[in-house]
Amino acid sequence: MDHFVSIHLDRGSDKPLYIQLYEGIVRLIEEKKLSPGEKLPTIRKLSSLLKVNTVTVVNAYRLLEREGYVVSRVGSGTYVRSAVKSINEGEMREDISEERSSVHQVPYDFAGAFIPPEYFPVEDFKRAINKVLDRDGGYAFSYSESQGYLPFRHSLGKYLAKEYAIEVPVHLIHVVSGAQQGIDIISKALLDFGDVVFVESPTYPGAIDAFKSRGARIVEIPLTQDGPDMDELVARLRLKPPKIFYTMPNFQNPTGYSYSEQKKKELLALSRKYDFLIIEDDHMNDLYYEERPLPLKNLDAEGRVFYIKGFSKLFMPGLRLGFIVAPEPFSKKLQEVKYFSDITSSELAQRALDVMLKDGSFYDHADKMREIFRERWNIALKAMKKHFPAGVYWSKPSGGLFFWITLPDGCYSMNLYGKAIKNGILITPGDFFYPDRRPTTSFRLSIAQIPSEKLEEGIKLLAGCIAELLEEYRIDPLKGDMYKPLL
Amino acid sequence: MDHFVSIHLDRGSDKPLYIQLYEGIVRLIEEKKLSPGEKLPTIRKLSSLLKVNTVTVVNAYRLLEREGYVVSRVGSGTYVRSAVKSINEGEMREDISEERSSVHQVPYDFAGAFIPPEYFPVEDFKRAINKVLDRDGGYAFSYSESQGYLPFRHSLGKYLAKEYAIEVPVHLIHVVSGAQQGIDIISKALLDFGDVVFVESPTYPGAIDAFKSRGARIVEIPLTQDGPDMDELVARLRLKPPKIFYTMPNFQNPTGYSYSEQKKKELLALSRKYDFLIIEDDHMNDLYYEERPLPLKNLDAEGRVFYIKGFSKLFMPGLRLGFIVAPEPFSKKLQEVKYFSDITSSELAQRALDVMLKDGSFYDHADKMREIFRERWNIALKAMKKHFPAGVYWSKPSGGLFFWITLPDGCYSMNLYGKAIKNGILITPGDFFYPDRRPTTSFRLSIAQIPSEKLEEGIKLLAGCIAELLEEYRIDPLKGDMYKPLL
Repeated sequence: MDHFVSIHLDRGSDKPLYIQLYEGIVRLIEEKKLSPGEKLPTIRKLSSLLKVNTVTVVNAYRLLEREGYVVSRVGSGTYVRSAVKSINEGEMREDISEERSSVHQVPYDFAGAFIPPEYFPVEDFKRAINKVLDRDGGYAFSYSESQGYLPFRHSLGKYLAKEYAIEVPVHLIHVVSGAQQGIDIISKALLDFGDVVFVESPTYPGAIDAFKSRGARIVEIPLTQDGPDMDELVARLRLKPPKIFYTMPNFQNPTGYSYSEQKKKELLALSRKYDFLIIEDDHMNDLYYEERPLPLKNLDAEGRVFYIKGFSKLFMPGLRLGFIVAPEPFSKKLQEVKYFSDITSSELAQRALDVMLKDGSFYDHADKMREIFRERWNIALKAMKKHFPAGVYWSKPSGGLFFWITLPDGCYSMNLYGKAIKNGILITPGDFFYPDRRPTTSFRLSIAQIPSEKLEEGIKLLAGCIAELLEEYRIDPLKGDMYKPLL
Repeated sequence: MDHFVSIHLDRGSDKPLYIQLYEGIVRLIEEKKLSPGEKLPTIRKLSSLLKVNTVTVVNAYRLLEREGYVVSRVGSGTYVRSAVKSINEGEMREDISEERSSVHQVPYDFAGAFIPPEYFPVEDFKRAINKVLDRDGGYAFSYSESQGYLPFRHSLGKYLAKEYAIEVPVHLIHVVSGAQQGIDIISKALLDFGDVVFVESPTYPGAIDAFKSRGARIVEIPLTQDGPDMDELVARLRLKPPKIFYTMPNFQNPTGYSYSEQKKKELLALSRKYDFLIIEDDHMNDLYYEERPLPLKNLDAEGRVFYIKGFSKLFMPGLRLGFIVAPEPFSKKLQEVKYFSDITSSELAQRALDVMLKDGSFYDHADKMREIFRERWNIALKAMKKHFPAGVYWSKPSGGLFFWITLPDGCYSMNLYGKAIKNGILITPGDFFYPDRRPTTSFRLSIAQIPSEKLEEGIKLLAGCIAELLEEYRIDPLKGDMYKPLL
């Protein structure tokens, strides 16, 4: 408590007292006078110590929580967060890889979102690249248009027509260096400071960072199993429609949820009514295990959807290729933005992937991956059903690499993360998929990196960690809300 | 004049009359009621026609000019521009390539800024890429850190130490997808709406677009043969220092000018005094013909310089690789921005170029290019001296690919461009290197694309075009300012 006495509050200042208090506590955290995990004084105690109204302390704590400095646990108190960081999955992965190297080898990696390098079609790609180098010589490294190598765009057009029955002229297809760049380029083309972007909640944090970099305000629309919560969406639209709605309508990251066809149509209808644009991030459609889902773009008669497809997750992340299909009126602008972003994507990579689209090895690879991951997906679903304790819920996606697991109320996934890593298991806590990185009881389980033969074992072990955690929380998962939070 | 009568001016509106007039004329241009090249009415005529003050018309015309809709030619009048486009060299190149295809083959290409594909070290690269694929398999396509493949960053550190005596730790080296992305990423990391950026005038338009995309205000600092006009720079700094000064201190694009060592030191001293950061775009240092110039970064004791090096111009544009050396305090931020921009640059390209840096073939290529372009440079200098008419001035850079040619006052380079293209010669009018794309009497002559054996012939032909133009302008180049502008 000593440190708190040192917080100076100036009652004569224009600055509200709760802001001053907030800033004082932030300073204590930054100067490491308050350590991660340390409990803040109760509201009553601090208000009497500093001789301020309890409301002032409540407001200061709320602001601290919103800004990510503290976590409050129901029935327990408010604690300093372990680290205040910008929210991005990349950093999360860095944290993880540090921990990974400290334990040398994590036996059960349910965090990695990309398929393992041994599945990349290296031989096919090598053949393709050598073909290009022999055929085109130095021209394989020259600049084509910013928008992308024309024959490659033709091949992408055919791919869209063949796989998704989407017919678009090549002048609307823009090659980019992966889906993330697609999001960034559309953001630069469309967003100005203060514009509103609706995102699914939870969602992919890399998109949020790109939107925030343009000064956009993020509004979260809760995602349910068959699409957005429509009541909430409509209520938010009535308040203020966004410039962009960012969505992954099929096999969403992190939940694995897919929109029903009904909700796809409703979203498009709303985009007309409230005049907003849609970014459809199709990160995983090729990895369907039941029937191939149709992208939203397939229903987009009016040209409101920017369709983004990256080849990273399924194909080869390090290749850095993807594409955007733009609505006609924005096509020119995207081209300009791509130019000042990085002029053009790798000419060599475009030409090589073009060869693989034309000779069919691209499609063969997709088929092969679908078989491999369909098997894993079946094993994972069975194992979760068999091993997970009562009170734990999980999504049942029909494609992709991710399951979204929800623990009983108050049982935070960050605590499970800590326990799991000690047992050689990696998961991705749900916190990372919310803009404010708030503590959640959900986490993402990815089947990308873990081999079939270790899947059930891994899930069984993880189930053991969950059971242990529930025990520590002294919670009866079927009854509910008495528990002792860990810290 | 008929169309102008249709412009509706609402005197009761809050909107100033000159803005209404501006918008009315823009509409006429967009609806193609005014054609490119068409002369606008004189100020007096339009003011009497619309019954507005002449100042209203002057202001409207100024705004039209600033926004790129019209060009005003001294002593002649105001004309509708041939096309209203955003200012970027890429589009300029597109315009050119359209014209190129219409004339099938331009015999004398003095516009292309990249070395021709036949000089790219394709065989060395093919060897390197196959080595990487055999050695690393699928890992050649996995993700490394956003900041770049670590062994490659070590090689880049050695390159900097060897070639420029710059010693930097690898954690300050950030791999990017070419110099343009370097500029864009630094802009995103540093610039907010309304921030001021100083640029050399003229300068590389791709940089301006990246700065403007962040909402920055651009201030032009005139460039002289040995660096910025210091009086103007200091006067501008006293008014309001920028957040960033963007510079190419050696073999600048488009002028070929280099800073004296004195001015390099002065600029760094000013950056301390007025607390601004510097982006050094080192696009061409490897192509020195006399002695190797030292980058500003080499003198940067205090860590104020972001050093950007692209491998496009000299090496292989389509490879899309370059790097940034960041001042320590900004290194973390750059990494975050790179992540949400495109996650990472091509892993395969990084690994292949790393092989070429390690086996020396990168350096061999640079040496070879230096020999080839030193020869062209000598030929070009001699030919200009021999053939260019009196009154024409040109820069004498000691490296790089560009000369900056200035015609007599009032003799616009856009007019020379039109005349030259009819004679099978491409140049880049100076207009493209100013933020407002204003008409200038200068142009850039590049020796990148034209073979040695056609160089003198090309320059002689171009000199003929210039002489013809001067004749049409009925100008005595030594006397000056009576001329009849073309249109």
